[in-house]
Amino acid sequence: MTFLRKLREIQQRNNSLLCIGLDTDIHKLPEFMFEYGDPVFEYNRRIINATKDLVCAYKINMAFYEVRGESGWYTVHQTLARIPETIVRIADPKRTDIGNSAEQYAHLFMTDYEFDAVTLPPYMGWDSIGPFVKRPSQCGFILTLSSNPGSRDFQYLKVGSKPLYEKVIEKVKTWNKKKNLGLIVGATHPKELRRIRNLAPDLPILIPGIGAQKGDLRSAVRYGVSKRGDLAIINVSRDILYAGVDEKFPQAAREKALQYRAEINKYRKDFPA
Amino acid sequence: MTFLRKLREIQQRNNSLLCIGLDTDIHKLPEFMFEYGDPVFEYNRRIINATKDLVCAYKINMAFYEVRGESGWYTVHQTLARIPETIVRIADPKRTDIGNSAEQYAHLFMTDYEFDAVTLPPYMGWDSIGPFVKRPSQCGFILTLSSNPGSRDFQYLKVGSKPLYEKVIEKVKTWNKKKNLGLIVGATHPKELRRIRNLAPDLPILIPGIGAQKGDLRSAVRYGVSKRGDLAIINVSRDILYAGVDEKFPQAAREKALQYRAEINKYRKDFPA
Repeated sequence: MTFLRKLREIQQRNNSLLCIGLDTDIHKLPEFMFEYGDPVFEYNRRIINATKDLVCAYKINMAFYEVRGESGWYTVHQTLARIPETIVRIADPKRTDIGNSAEQYAHLFMTDYEFDAVTLPPYMGWDSIGPFVKRPSQCGFILTLSSNPGSRDFQYLKVGSKPLYEKVIEKVKTWNKKKNLGLIVGATHPKELRRIRNLAPDLPILIPGIGAQKGDLRSAVRYGVSKRGDLAIINVSRDILYAGVDEKFPQAAREKALQYRAEINKYRKDFPA
Repeated sequence: MTFLRKLREIQQRNNSLLCIGLDTDIHKLPEFMFEYGDPVFEYNRRIINATKDLVCAYKINMAFYEVRGESGWYTVHQTLARIPETIVRIADPKRTDIGNSAEQYAHLFMTDYEFDAVTLPPYMGWDSIGPFVKRPSQCGFILTLSSNPGSRDFQYLKVGSKPLYEKVIEKVKTWNKKKNLGLIVGATHPKELRRIRNLAPDLPILIPGIGAQKGDLRSAVRYGVSKRGDLAIINVSRDILYAGVDEKFPQAAREKALQYRAEINKYRKDFPA
């Protein structure tokens, strides 16, 4: 199945554009989780069980796993096994390299761990991207406009009359022979998101920056969706993950996810194609 | 000790600008290495023992370790323990992220593994770089002009009258308050390297692309060194690592490293400040 079809099917089935970011920080877990051999996995397992009918995707931010060294990778493996296979599983490692090194990373994320999608920085160009997106069933989301203050340092530099991030979009469109590339655009840039959706009407757009980063959800939905009202993937991490602090954290996460899904769907209806 | 001082001291002591890239690919190891529990570590250990008086640095390309999942990280840990502490240890993960995620990666590479230096892509700007370079003893090498064909896709785009990679250099210079930033410039771009050294006379420059990638060693040395004849770090990986195929591979690697060091030093003398 192509990536786009998988994404559209789950967005329809769960009536959801919501992606939960499993940025699970071992230092933020409640103390009672440490009764378990792998508290991060146990936390993820409960979050997934409580929310899997409400999301189109889970995104695994590799930083939070890799910081734990060897054992973090084991947690990734275990966590992936608990995500139903109809749901899109996004690796968020934001890394690549040249030639033979890119092949190594691609093997890790796309073959060994078999993620459905991966986040990639653009700076090193096509031969750093290609190894990850050999199969139409697996998507590369190219970092276009990031949600952080540092996005101003380079991404807005004018190349001729266009900002650099638009040159990234132009390249992504020429690279997209297998229709398995997407963009990453932070919800903290609503005006730009609107323009980007016009420039790339058919690309999936992963939109981080909602919740703790204070991106604008209404604009993210209004401007991020395709004409069919889909293909935007709205990521929320901390706000759902840590919605509760006691034994009932899975229910609290579910409540929060329900709220987000409802709010997203309200904005989808307010602004039809 | 500051990073710059450590680098200059070892470049002087070992009379060497050579860095060996430990891009150790388990699939390229000779069969007899598989008698060992961790063949990659055992290979690295022998390479290090055979070359540690000939280099200023070792660079660990994380791709080749991470592809092996949990066990790869253990190999990194073991390998680092075998590098004498006077020698610069460079992590080559080419990754960062925004805010709290960048902090996680920085903790992993700069605190847990305590590398002396790390390679970082520039696209997400200062807040994706800062967390790695809090200490003057640890250096961030910013990807400026990569050695691959894809370097043409974005790095040469004209921003006003200047190519994008020069804007990266301008930013790096303004960020360099602690004098612990450097640049990465592929040896496949000799003309640009010359200009970059003029733009950044005091920054360490990590120069990959020699050997398998066919970068020009003479130009890399001639144009990459500072006025004092140092601060260039010339990386060679496969050409030294796999110089031999039988039990004598450490001696073969040593021979090759001796040749590289001699050739580099010849070019250093041919073109004094």
